[in-house]
Amino acid sequence: MNKKEKIIIIGGVAAGPKAAARITRLNNDAEVIVIEKGEFLSYAGCGLPYYVSGVVKEQAELMSTPIGVVRDPAFFEKVKNVKVLNNTLATEIDVKNKTVGICKADEKSPSEWLKYDKLILCTGATPVVPPIKGIEKNNIFTLHGVEDAEGVKSKISGEKAMDCVIVGGGLIGVEMTEALVERGCRVTIIERLPHILSFLDDEMARQVELHMEAKGVKVMTNTTVTAFTGEDSVTGVETDNGCVSAEIVIMAIGVRPRVELAKNIGLEIGTLGGIVVDEKMCTSIPDIYAAGDCVENINIITGKSCYAPLGSTANKHGRVAASNICGLNDKFNGVLGSAICKVFDFNVGRTGLSEDEALKAGYEVETVLSPSPDKAHFMPDAKLIMLKMVVDKANRCLLGLQAVGPGSCDKKIDIAAMALTAKMTIDQLAEVDLCYAPPFSPAMDNIITASNIVRNKLDGLMNGITPAEVNKWREEKRDFTLLDVRSKGEYDEKHIEGSLHIPLGALRTKVDEIPKDKPVVAFCKISLRGYEAALILKSAGFKDISVMDGGIVMWSFN
Amino acid sequence: MNKKEKIIIIGGVAAGPKAAARITRLNNDAEVIVIEKGEFLSYAGCGLPYYVSGVVKEQAELMSTPIGVVRDPAFFEKVKNVKVLNNTLATEIDVKNKTVGICKADEKSPSEWLKYDKLILCTGATPVVPPIKGIEKNNIFTLHGVEDAEGVKSKISGEKAMDCVIVGGGLIGVEMTEALVERGCRVTIIERLPHILSFLDDEMARQVELHMEAKGVKVMTNTTVTAFTGEDSVTGVETDNGCVSAEIVIMAIGVRPRVELAKNIGLEIGTLGGIVVDEKMCTSIPDIYAAGDCVENINIITGKSCYAPLGSTANKHGRVAASNICGLNDKFNGVLGSAICKVFDFNVGRTGLSEDEALKAGYEVETVLSPSPDKAHFMPDAKLIMLKMVVDKANRCLLGLQAVGPGSCDKKIDIAAMALTAKMTIDQLAEVDLCYAPPFSPAMDNIITASNIVRNKLDGLMNGITPAEVNKWREEKRDFTLLDVRSKGEYDEKHIEGSLHIPLGALRTKVDEIPKDKPVVAFCKISLRGYEAALILKSAGFKDISVMDGGIVMWSFN
Repeated sequence: MNKKEKIIIIGGVAAGPKAAARITRLNNDAEVIVIEKGEFLSYAGCGLPYYVSGVVKEQAELMSTPIGVVRDPAFFEKVKNVKVLNNTLATEIDVKNKTVGICKADEKSPSEWLKYDKLILCTGATPVVPPIKGIEKNNIFTLHGVEDAEGVKSKISGEKAMDCVIVGGGLIGVEMTEALVERGCRVTIIERLPHILSFLDDEMARQVELHMEAKGVKVMTNTTVTAFTGEDSVTGVETDNGCVSAEIVIMAIGVRPRVELAKNIGLEIGTLGGIVVDEKMCTSIPDIYAAGDCVENINIITGKSCYAPLGSTANKHGRVAASNICGLNDKFNGVLGSAICKVFDFNVGRTGLSEDEALKAGYEVETVLSPSPDKAHFMPDAKLIMLKMVVDKANRCLLGLQAVGPGSCDKKIDIAAMALTAKMTIDQLAEVDLCYAPPFSPAMDNIITASNIVRNKLDGLMNGITPAEVNKWREEKRDFTLLDVRSKGEYDEKHIEGSLHIPLGALRTKVDEIPKDKPVVAFCKISLRGYEAALILKSAGFKDISVMDGGIVMWSFN
Repeated sequence: MNKKEKIIIIGGVAAGPKAAARITRLNNDAEVIVIEKGEFLSYAGCGLPYYVSGVVKEQAELMSTPIGVVRDPAFFEKVKNVKVLNNTLATEIDVKNKTVGICKADEKSPSEWLKYDKLILCTGATPVVPPIKGIEKNNIFTLHGVEDAEGVKSKISGEKAMDCVIVGGGLIGVEMTEALVERGCRVTIIERLPHILSFLDDEMARQVELHMEAKGVKVMTNTTVTAFTGEDSVTGVETDNGCVSAEIVIMAIGVRPRVELAKNIGLEIGTLGGIVVDEKMCTSIPDIYAAGDCVENINIITGKSCYAPLGSTANKHGRVAASNICGLNDKFNGVLGSAICKVFDFNVGRTGLSEDEALKAGYEVETVLSPSPDKAHFMPDAKLIMLKMVVDKANRCLLGLQAVGPGSCDKKIDIAAMALTAKMTIDQLAEVDLCYAPPFSPAMDNIITASNIVRNKLDGLMNGITPAEVNKWREEKRDFTLLDVRSKGEYDEKHIEGSLHIPLGALRTKVDEIPKDKPVVAFCKISLRGYEAALILKSAGFKDISVMDGGIVMWSFN
């Protein structure tokens, strides 16, 4: 690279500032200009729900460095040697002359043209706002910038409990649900699909819904918003499932890449609407790079395009683009679809493919539901983690992990993300020397236990059935024995209607009480005893025995 | 395998019961006998410090299943189809006739001989009790079994603050230190080596020592115990570093594999004193397997033998031995040396090789010290993690990670354990799609940031120097500039004597205040600004510039 090269970066939230700082670190003589339409750079958009909830006290914290210096243009100039044009729009790109036309944020056509040698588009994403009747009313917000957060905060700062409706059950929707409940609001969350958090399989999402409902949130799934009612300000939300009163509405149905500039100059746009880049973050036009929420990523597992707008990914993009611009050789190979969020007392995460996604991608899979405590079970602060593991039957490689519950789900997701990156089989995963002491994990880590259950299934040692399938059998009035082998105390506390109760310790002596001529589904709390029951029945001559995955802990039906 | 095979397992703590249960699951017709010298099976020895501290209320919790069923012989017989001979010693093995001689725990010579087809030795480990003068006195304990824990508890249950001395600064030593402080004891910990927790490098162990000292623990390193004083009961500990009063002493200088039976029949014993097994857990004599704390493991990184007695490993051993006995093909490839413990508010872990170990094994390494918060920095409950990463210069592969601090160190260690298992380079590690949301990690995960710093070092973009080396320079009175680029507030709060203070924002204008003809070591809080300062100085023509690794956070000198 020419030492004195001029680099223009359009967009100053995550990928842009990261790339800018890296470029000046690698080449102090480079002239780097960041064009940002807003006032501030590098603000942590992902922190907005925590600013609304009050966990983060000051707006400034979201736009400061870890030691409290606000990242304003002066900071970037003095410390990073980066010139920042804030409150500035990039309106046009002249590819032939390698210039960018800019104007003040309140203008429309370029008042100045800046020359570039290399250009990075970090134009981010924009919230989807569907053309629903009444959507222009007051107090209907998206949550995409600091202004949105301030708007929401100003509405809920009074004494009165407000009725809030969140439209969209994705990550931002559930984070905002928690934030608003924390602030004393009565919240309804409306999701068009059968379940919230569509990156989870149904039974995992259902666990999150149950938890939200236990916290007083009304969860309306399979529900489409048809109109917003009220005079100037919104007072209600009409849906195909009835009306809900609402003094505040948050539209959180997703974001789409902001690609107008890219389209105008003919950059290749992917099927998902994002800019197509190669592993060096190069676009289809030489000397133009793109990074962050405006680009499409490759899913490492499927090899197909995906849209995964996340601050963590944007930062990596920015670094890779910068390194390549400065003549180093760096690559961004793709994403796993890792995602996590906090929903009240639950941590909810996934990486890789859900079962649904894996089946759609053509994999033949084995799965397991495995609930267990996140520490040695005798530690009083051990908390439940419900895992769902998805494995490729063809080569025994992990395809995905979902984790839901009050325990340390993020740790399990990150372990799985490493396994997916390394394309590990579950046989390898079951043997990893993860760190163990009672305050940190069970002696057999949850993920190792789950791996071992899948191994047993793949090796034909265990025949699993999901709670959903068992429920389907019940609804179809199939003739089978649902065998609960828990203790009497556990059974009395909660049991599944119609189940036969024989505690495991008594099973060998009471085996004759179970009809041999119809299928048996054994279960316990988490189905380890259920598995042992199945083995006892097998040795007693039973032929058709399954174990209900995840036991009664993961039963979410009536 | 012959369906009706007889399998005898000697030892009923971790590997033994695991193997027994797995065998009967795989082959319900097998006759499995576990011989255990104590009363109970499957007790969680690693939970004993938490029973002493009172975190675990009842002894029974340590010997129960997660749902509270005590694992007594009746439980094993009824539920697992395993016969347990507790309070029973295995005193002899007759290899030729394939029999084991047993007797009651209070006898010595075999009163009965049991026939086996396959034998598994799970004889565990025994605490090292050195022949120090006075070691036979009352109130000197090891902490290896429930009886030890009860003994310690009974001594500290009074009202009076007791003087306790822990001899040995390993995992059990520091866990017991915390436990006894929790119970109101005044604790001194004595370690023969220069630092406690020898699996850590010095500067990391020093951070733990400082934390223990801040909690009122007297840490005596480089100190050897020479005698215990007192009449019947211990009253003091004499060392080469002075006397310490003591009403209770815990000997925690380590354990050694219990291999008398193995030696008697001529099984191959390794250089570290453990039974040598192959990856199927077979010993050197056909049909005899060994598992758990009595065997040596292979360190996956070095390929050399190591002794790593841990409940997590023992469980894996037990499963692998059982699978192979039952005709499946399973392998245990080795360990990474992963270890973790809680020390008051600190979590302390490591996996792979420390720098010391790596150098001794002949690697040329690059390292980094990287302190950073475990969540997005604006989250009020973000906690510090201090990482030390060790990387192989030859192939850029991770060799080890150490993590110390109040943050979620266990998660970082497990991520690193996965990277080590997959033999990942730091370039791969820096790009993994770990899950991100503000309550769970920084947007750039700590481990990704640490990887990027090492990449910068390996790529010649940054010249690091450790705090220890800087301190050595000071002690040698070398002529250099120690440049602190933090803010004035940070400097006023704490600074290093003799450092030159120029805040980063002012550096470009004040560069002339720094002598150009001698080395400059730049630092800040964590040395990110220190790195930026070094780049500014480089562009200003400075030649000899280093960045102090880990900044003032990891400075532990006066």
